[in-house]
Amino acid sequence: MTIDETGRPHHPIDRTDTVGAIGERAVIAALTASATAGEPAHDIVIGSGDDAAVLDIGGSAVISTDTVVEGRHFRFGWSTPEQVGARAVVQSSADVAAMGGRTTGLVVSIACPAETPVGVVLDLNDGVVRAAHELDARVLGGDLVAAGQVVVSVTAVGALEDRRPVSLGGARTGDVLAVSGPLGASAAGLAVLSDPRAAESDWPELVALHRVPAPDLGQGPIAAAAGAHAMTDISDGLIEELLTMSRAAGLAMAVDSDAVPRRPDLVEAAGALGVDLTRWLLAGGEDHHLLASFEAAAVPPGWTVIGSVGAPSTSAPEVWVDDRRVGGPDGPDLHGWQSFADPTGD
Amino acid sequence: MTIDETGRPHHPIDRTDTVGAIGERAVIAALTASATAGEPAHDIVIGSGDDAAVLDIGGSAVISTDTVVEGRHFRFGWSTPEQVGARAVVQSSADVAAMGGRTTGLVVSIACPAETPVGVVLDLNDGVVRAAHELDARVLGGDLVAAGQVVVSVTAVGALEDRRPVSLGGARTGDVLAVSGPLGASAAGLAVLSDPRAAESDWPELVALHRVPAPDLGQGPIAAAAGAHAMTDISDGLIEELLTMSRAAGLAMAVDSDAVPRRPDLVEAAGALGVDLTRWLLAGGEDHHLLASFEAAAVPPGWTVIGSVGAPSTSAPEVWVDDRRVGGPDGPDLHGWQSFADPTGD
Repeated sequence: MTIDETGRPHHPIDRTDTVGAIGERAVIAALTASATAGEPAHDIVIGSGDDAAVLDIGGSAVISTDTVVEGRHFRFGWSTPEQVGARAVVQSSADVAAMGGRTTGLVVSIACPAETPVGVVLDLNDGVVRAAHELDARVLGGDLVAAGQVVVSVTAVGALEDRRPVSLGGARTGDVLAVSGPLGASAAGLAVLSDPRAAESDWPELVALHRVPAPDLGQGPIAAAAGAHAMTDISDGLIEELLTMSRAAGLAMAVDSDAVPRRPDLVEAAGALGVDLTRWLLAGGEDHHLLASFEAAAVPPGWTVIGSVGAPSTSAPEVWVDDRRVGGPDGPDLHGWQSFADPTGD
Repeated sequence: MTIDETGRPHHPIDRTDTVGAIGERAVIAALTASATAGEPAHDIVIGSGDDAAVLDIGGSAVISTDTVVEGRHFRFGWSTPEQVGARAVVQSSADVAAMGGRTTGLVVSIACPAETPVGVVLDLNDGVVRAAHELDARVLGGDLVAAGQVVVSVTAVGALEDRRPVSLGGARTGDVLAVSGPLGASAAGLAVLSDPRAAESDWPELVALHRVPAPDLGQGPIAAAAGAHAMTDISDGLIEELLTMSRAAGLAMAVDSDAVPRRPDLVEAAGALGVDLTRWLLAGGEDHHLLASFEAAAVPPGWTVIGSVGAPSTSAPEVWVDDRRVGGPDGPDLHGWQSFADPTGD
């Protein structure tokens, strides 16, 4: 493998050959070469290519894994292999950020049919490597196996440095709830792709954010350093995450939907498509911005206050949106996305 | 979930319901309960159930991932879900051991069809949890997603403590080669299962070792502490691993097939089935015992010397078995197992 002036790796094997024809080892060698190209990171003792990688964590390690499945979490018609790889990295790293960690290393498992062109696997891996580099992290290794469909698992390993981990259930009565970015873009991008009346070129950034979410994961360590009491990333939609946080803390939580930050193009797209904007904001998942609870005075710059943490609840999870209880008789019934219940594909 | 007097967890959900019917979250909750049952490990700061786990590594972390696919790496007709889970843990942890690491935490991703009975997923997870406990490690978290077939990825995270990592390519001319256990049992067990003339009850231990290999992974840290120069686990067969080590070091390597340790029942089974014993010993993979090179005086108890490391080779990989070169004109052509080339199933 060589690197051209754009930093994009060139693979000497024929990209149109199938993985089965070229063989696992040759493909893994190309993936390893791609993963180890460029500047070595100071905290990697042994990188990709050995039995296992060795990472100098210098304290506590934060570990999370996330798996995406073709036809279920992504479709190659809608996303390029690079985008699929990048998205898997963001998903896992968001979980690390939600503990207050900074992702420093990733391992990647790719399962795919033997008939898959090698170029698809190389591009998927390039997406992983590039997204890792954007987080100042490195790909430490992985596995490539034959399967009936493409399944990508990414495990992110991060460093807490001198911060205390921020758990799901640490919210305290009187805290404010805040988010680290504008919500709903991924759901809106999916709606644009799904709606025959909409063209991708009308809202290109929403579609791009559906394909690869772009949360500022540096806000996780910032929130932890600011003393956040509880934190999670918004993968299943704001309401779903609030229900999880409320259940974990045993406390009521309330949000003001008008306070939820939103992109101007999201408001435009909702109007043009005649869609309920609130649904995108409150139930749209996969933006992977962070949701945290803080003492009111401790909210760091970059975060938007959207609500507050109430009293202990005997019927937790207890989440209120605009003074209506979620799941209550006249309350909103906005639910996020679950892998088995509501697949993207099939 | 409750734990009975045998330590086996009881799950309150109906095991015959499908994963799709019960829903991802309820199943994940049961898996998490199982993973967090029993004694907490002192090095886990935050275990399964949060966005990510936090592990006190106290130095360098060793990380490896391994993926197994239904119909390719295992069949539920031949292995129980518990055995599949346990085997995945051994595979990943063997890679950590091969660096000199002790596995302390694991994350597990399970992809399965929505029609899968929940009992299968719970049993698979129980196998993971039990195998982890046998290694004095803990399950830190995971992911459960829908897919067309069962795909299990296990990422093992280990601690090096004060040992130096042992790489693949560190062998030195004059070293001896040694293995940490008897080889060929997994291949022999597969042969017993495949041969209509053989009954599982004739060689139950070989079959059991095919279903769940039982290497002493504590030998990895022992070898590292003893100053091993190079090490790997034998996943693809001894010859294949020697080729990899020879290539990585640029040195010739030679083994004496008579010196390779073997179980008495392996010798019996080879005789009874009329199989070439040497093929099981040299090409049989998935035993996951360790192969290492040491200074002759440094070989620790528990290891068997099988050969030596020769001079720099301009045509590496250069591996000799009983004075015949592997791949040479009259040499043995014994190859291990590759995921795409030679699937177990399909």
